[in-house]
Amino acid sequence: MTTPVASCVSDSVVTLDSVRESLVRQEDTIVFSLIERAKFPTNAPIYDHSLNSFPGFSGSFVESVVRETEAVQAKAGRYENPEENPFFPDNLPPSLVPHRNYTQFLHPAGASININKKVWDMYFTQLLPLFVAPGDDGNYAATASSDLGCLQALSRRIHYGKFVAEVKYRDAPHDYEPAIRSKDRDALMNLLTFKSVEDIVKMRVEKKAMTFGQEVNVNANGTSTTNGNYKVDPPIVGRLYEEWVMPLTKLVQVEYLLRRLD
Amino acid sequence: MTTPVASCVSDSVVTLDSVRESLVRQEDTIVFSLIERAKFPTNAPIYDHSLNSFPGFSGSFVESVVRETEAVQAKAGRYENPEENPFFPDNLPPSLVPHRNYTQFLHPAGASININKKVWDMYFTQLLPLFVAPGDDGNYAATASSDLGCLQALSRRIHYGKFVAEVKYRDAPHDYEPAIRSKDRDALMNLLTFKSVEDIVKMRVEKKAMTFGQEVNVNANGTSTTNGNYKVDPPIVGRLYEEWVMPLTKLVQVEYLLRRLD
Repeated sequence: MTTPVASCVSDSVVTLDSVRESLVRQEDTIVFSLIERAKFPTNAPIYDHSLNSFPGFSGSFVESVVRETEAVQAKAGRYENPEENPFFPDNLPPSLVPHRNYTQFLHPAGASININKKVWDMYFTQLLPLFVAPGDDGNYAATASSDLGCLQALSRRIHYGKFVAEVKYRDAPHDYEPAIRSKDRDALMNLLTFKSVEDIVKMRVEKKAMTFGQEVNVNANGTSTTNGNYKVDPPIVGRLYEEWVMPLTKLVQVEYLLRRLD
Repeated sequence: MTTPVASCVSDSVVTLDSVRESLVRQEDTIVFSLIERAKFPTNAPIYDHSLNSFPGFSGSFVESVVRETEAVQAKAGRYENPEENPFFPDNLPPSLVPHRNYTQFLHPAGASININKKVWDMYFTQLLPLFVAPGDDGNYAATASSDLGCLQALSRRIHYGKFVAEVKYRDAPHDYEPAIRSKDRDALMNLLTFKSVEDIVKMRVEKKAMTFGQEVNVNANGTSTTNGNYKVDPPIVGRLYEEWVMPLTKLVQVEYLLRRLD
C-alpha cells in the first residue's frame, strides 16, 4: 500500500517539501468535499436566520450544527492542533484529551490569526451558489454536515498559510525583515506572489475536479467508460483557488509575517 | 453544471433506476471517505477502551466522538430520514426541526432493521487495519471524524438494502412471497444474488479507487501526469465490497423481506 501522506505537522519536521506536499494533498480533500456537498440541492432554509429551531441559538440552522459539532470536536482536542482553527472560537469547551506537545514550529503570535469569518462568508455567499443545484430535498442535517466538511477543508488550507510563511521566512529571513519592520503589506504580498506557481495550482485543481468528479463506469468485460459529466464544474474549482483560496492564504501569510518579529 | 444526483429518496419517486443511481453515487462517497481516513495513521489510542477521557462515557474515544456527533445530528433531524441509521440509537435526543413528510416508501417494519453493530465491528476490526498505515500522529479528533465519515457512508449504503428490497419486491411480489411465507432465508438470498452484477460492482469500485486515489499532477504546460501510486489500495476496496458491503446489503434485504408481509 502507498504510505499515506501525513496531513499534519505534529511530530514531524516541517520543510518546504512537506508544506508543499500537504497543500497538494489538501486539494484532494477540498475537491472531495465540494463533490459531496453537490449531492444535495441548495436547501436554502438551513441558511435562513429566521427559521432556526435549535433552542438557545440565534443564528441559522447550519450555524447551530457547526457550533455544536465544533464543541464536540473541541472536547476531542481538535483545536489543540495549530493547523485547526474553529469558526466559532468563543465559548468552546476545553479539550478533554491529554495535552499533546505539538512541535513548536510557528511563532506564538500565529495562534491569534483566524480569518474564518472571511472563509465563512466566501463559502456561503460566493462559492456555494456556484456549484449546487437549486432545490430543497429536506436533507438538512446531512447538508449541514457536508457544509462543515467544505468549511473545515477550506479553513485548514487557508490557515496553512501560517506554515507556508514560517518555512519561507526561515529559508530567507533577510528577504522579509525590511518589509516586516516597515509594516509594508504590499511589499510582503509581492514577495509571496509567484504567478507561474499559482497558474499551475489552478490547472492542477481543475484537473482534480475532472478526475475525481467524473462518473466512472465499467462494462461487463472490465473496460471503463465515462460520460464526460462532472459532479462539480472544474472551472469553478479553478476559480475558487484563483479568487479566494490563494488570495486568502496569502493574506494569512502576510498577517503572520507582520507578527513574526514580535 | 451537471445536475447532481439526488442522494435521498425524500420527495422523489423511488424506482429501480433511482435506487441503482444512488448505489453507484454512494460508491464515490465511500471511496472518498476511505481516502480521507488514509491520511492519518492508525492512531490506536482512540480505539482503546481503557484510555477514553470523555467524562460519562465508558467506551473508546472514537465511540464518544461518534455518540456525541450523532446526538448533534439527531437534533438536526438526520435520523428522521429513513436512509439514515444511527450507530448508537439509545438515548438520542429528539429532532428539533419541523417534521418533514418523507415519502412513505418502505414498509413500516423496515425502520426496526439496524445492523450497524455489524458495520462497526467490520470497519474497525477487519477493514481499517487493511488500509491505514501503522503509527500515531496525535490527530485524534480529525481521525475520529474521518472514521465517522467512513462509518456513515458504509452504513447508508448497506441499509439502502431496504430500498433495494422494496423496489425488487414491488417489481415481482409473487417471486418473493413463497420464500417470505416459509421464512426461507437461503431461498431469499438466492433470489437476491446476481453474481455477474456483483462482479461488475467490484470492478467498478476498484476502478473508482484507482481514479479517485491517484496523485494528480500537471506540468507547467498543463500536461497531467500521475505516478501510479494510490492512496488506498484498489483491491482492498474491491474486497470491502465483495466480502462485506454486498453481503451485508443482502442481509438487510433478507431481513426486510422477512418483515414485508407483516
